Amino acid sequence: MPTTTPVRQLPHPGREEIRLEAVLHALADPIRLRIVTALDPYGEGDGSGATCSQVELPVTASTSTHHFRVLREAGVINQCYRGTAKINCLRRTDLEARFPGLLDAVLKAASA
Amino acid sequence: MPTTTPVRQLPHPGREEIRLEAVLHALADPIRLRIVTALDPYGEGDGSGATCSQVELPVTASTSTHHFRVLREAGVINQCYRGTAKINCLRRTDLEARFPGLLDAVLKAASA
Repeated sequence: MPTTTPVRQLPHPGREEIRLEAVLHALADPIRLRIVTALDPYGEGDGSGATCSQVELPVTASTSTHHFRVLREAGVINQCYRGTAKINCLRRTDLEARFPGLLDAVLKAASA
Repeated sequence: MPTTTPVRQLPHPGREEIRLEAVLHALADPIRLRIVTALDPYGEGDGSGATCSQVELPVTASTSTHHFRVLREAGVINQCYRGTAKINCLRRTDLEARFPGLLDAVLKAASA
């Protein structure tokens, strides 16, 4: 009998579950702002995005993992597995629907 | 010899000292979002603004004072004394100059 490998999925808040305070908290950190800025050029369609290691950060791998998780749990980024690598992208559409203009204002301010 | 009463002034960051991370951290709290929303209708000219006690909050006076101070130290609000009362107002002009669109996006999201 063939075995199937379950696709590993990470928990994400649904669009309506994304809370403003959590998003602002997630963004209120220089490392996480760097991550968000680094993901800005990537789309959010199927499989597009950057792996964690593609985002250069001056922290250890476990600290990096922590920061990506905070962003995911707040609803700022989507993380999905491709093999063993996590692909990350901004949840632009969801964030724009929930908090119009917020992500763009933060990205603009962070890159100023 | 007449005595002069020094005007008590509270420390505020200058416009160029306002940091994005500090502003986002200050806003990433439901009580502080309530304060910012409550101050939204007030102007920022001489003496305009609301006293701390005019902003109704479900916390003790000392906790309220703490939250106002976090907002002031981050550069989100201006606090000045009128007699013994602190008058609070949003630093709209400074925030808009530093981080265009950010305060408006947060205010809109907080009141949605």
